Amino acid sequence: MIQPVKQIMIIKANGKREAFEPEKLRFSLLKSGATEKMAEDVLSHISLELGGDMTTSEIYKHAFSVLKKASKPVARSYSLRRAITDLGPSGFPFEDFVAEVLKAKGFRCETRQVVLGGCVPHEVDVVAYNDKKLIMVEAKFHNELGIKSDLKIALYIKARFDDLQENVFNYGGVDRSITDSWLVTNTKFSSTAIHYGVCKNLTMIGWNYPEEGNLQDMIESESLHPITCLNSLSKANKKILLGAGVVLCSNIKDNPEFLSKFLGTTFDSRPVINEINELLSKAS
Amino acid sequence: MIQPVKQIMIIKANGKREAFEPEKLRFSLLKSGATEKMAEDVLSHISLELGGDMTTSEIYKHAFSVLKKASKPVARSYSLRRAITDLGPSGFPFEDFVAEVLKAKGFRCETRQVVLGGCVPHEVDVVAYNDKKLIMVEAKFHNELGIKSDLKIALYIKARFDDLQENVFNYGGVDRSITDSWLVTNTKFSSTAIHYGVCKNLTMIGWNYPEEGNLQDMIESESLHPITCLNSLSKANKKILLGAGVVLCSNIKDNPEFLSKFLGTTFDSRPVINEINELLSKAS
Repeated sequence: MIQPVKQIMIIKANGKREAFEPEKLRFSLLKSGATEKMAEDVLSHISLELGGDMTTSEIYKHAFSVLKKASKPVARSYSLRRAITDLGPSGFPFEDFVAEVLKAKGFRCETRQVVLGGCVPHEVDVVAYNDKKLIMVEAKFHNELGIKSDLKIALYIKARFDDLQENVFNYGGVDRSITDSWLVTNTKFSSTAIHYGVCKNLTMIGWNYPEEGNLQDMIESESLHPITCLNSLSKANKKILLGAGVVLCSNIKDNPEFLSKFLGTTFDSRPVINEINELLSKAS
Repeated sequence: MIQPVKQIMIIKANGKREAFEPEKLRFSLLKSGATEKMAEDVLSHISLELGGDMTTSEIYKHAFSVLKKASKPVARSYSLRRAITDLGPSGFPFEDFVAEVLKAKGFRCETRQVVLGGCVPHEVDVVAYNDKKLIMVEAKFHNELGIKSDLKIALYIKARFDDLQENVFNYGGVDRSITDSWLVTNTKFSSTAIHYGVCKNLTMIGWNYPEEGNLQDMIESESLHPITCLNSLSKANKKILLGAGVVLCSNIKDNPEFLSKFLGTTFDSRPVINEINELLSKAS
């Protein structure tokens, strides 16, 4: 008798059920640097040892535990990348996150600014500045890791930069011109977008582009873990904190009162603080 | 006793049923220049005199017949606009259509070209040229009339134009620079997109922008009715012809053999030819 193929159903965070798609998981594992062999190990672990209904978070935990045995850096990258994706579905938390990354680099930042160019006003996700530089940053968040930021995005960033260069702006108390235009994304760039960006002197930062100084490097070198990394916070509470602009674990470490302020005075902060201390001590 | 609200279901071209949304119809009527009163008349005609399941094409016919009594130009505009929307869902037939519009203006045209800029190759929907001009045209097709072509589109067209200006091209047997950049859409532009386009000297043509020389004007002044205007062709046959690059009624009038070539030798061409002759004689 032919065995029917076992169909694993997953229960999504919103409670909906859908068929588990192994190829999606394989894709995100490979994107995190897993070898074909590691991805295969994770998939067979999940399909052999488990069955019936699983939540996405259970699948993730199993994948992480198998990966950790094979390669700690790959497991860390997989986990971080998933946390960045969890900043969605709206793009605002990613904009706040990019601002935090730039603050850690020593810039002052303002988010969601309307800035006047020579022709029209532009909506700029993050304006970052220090004594020498005034940078206009587009933070491009994609919910699906497979979606690349393409040439059209790089083109409009360039045209916006050109229009903004026709004006001067008062940031940090002095009138000054824009010095740089950045495009930061949580996924990849198409190869044509990269060629164009290099040719036109745009700074483009993706998950693993450029080879050094990419988004993953920046997060790890400065311990900029988003709160979506944490297991001790429910999805609903993460959403409340993100909505209030609290995007980094270190924001909570520095201001533990945020937890009671935004989640209520009866909220038990200790497990969260403990998890953050453990995470940041490992990372540093 | 309270009368239950009568729910009219519509049967879409693909056979699926969905609830009739009066506000969608009202929107497309107003976009075609109908007054609030005319739109109200059409809607009450449909909800009072009809019921049960209707096809979208039946709804359209009723709307058209009510409109025609109130205002012939509005009825014509409504009908034409619907025919342009029916060029979708893919954007290719609209690109072919825009090429035909430009040919009628005396340009030679090539569609879907890869053109080398100073930095990268660009995919250009239509390259149009005559002795004086070499125009790169972006044909932006939206399936929903409510979607506007926004500032980002105008920006990337400008950056692409700048990149393409760093090169020369052989069209019409001579090496020459690009003279113009056009953006043509079947819907509207956002007001910021228009300001930017005027400021940067882009030619932008929408359904009813600019006031003179807009897409509707161009179609009517040159009798460039798309084959999606015709009642004597089935949806499936329209799709076959569009796929073969036959987009205008006048293409069929000039080459009636296209019908048997693409739809089979047993296809009865006479009703189609008759409808085209009637349509084009009214239009001219």
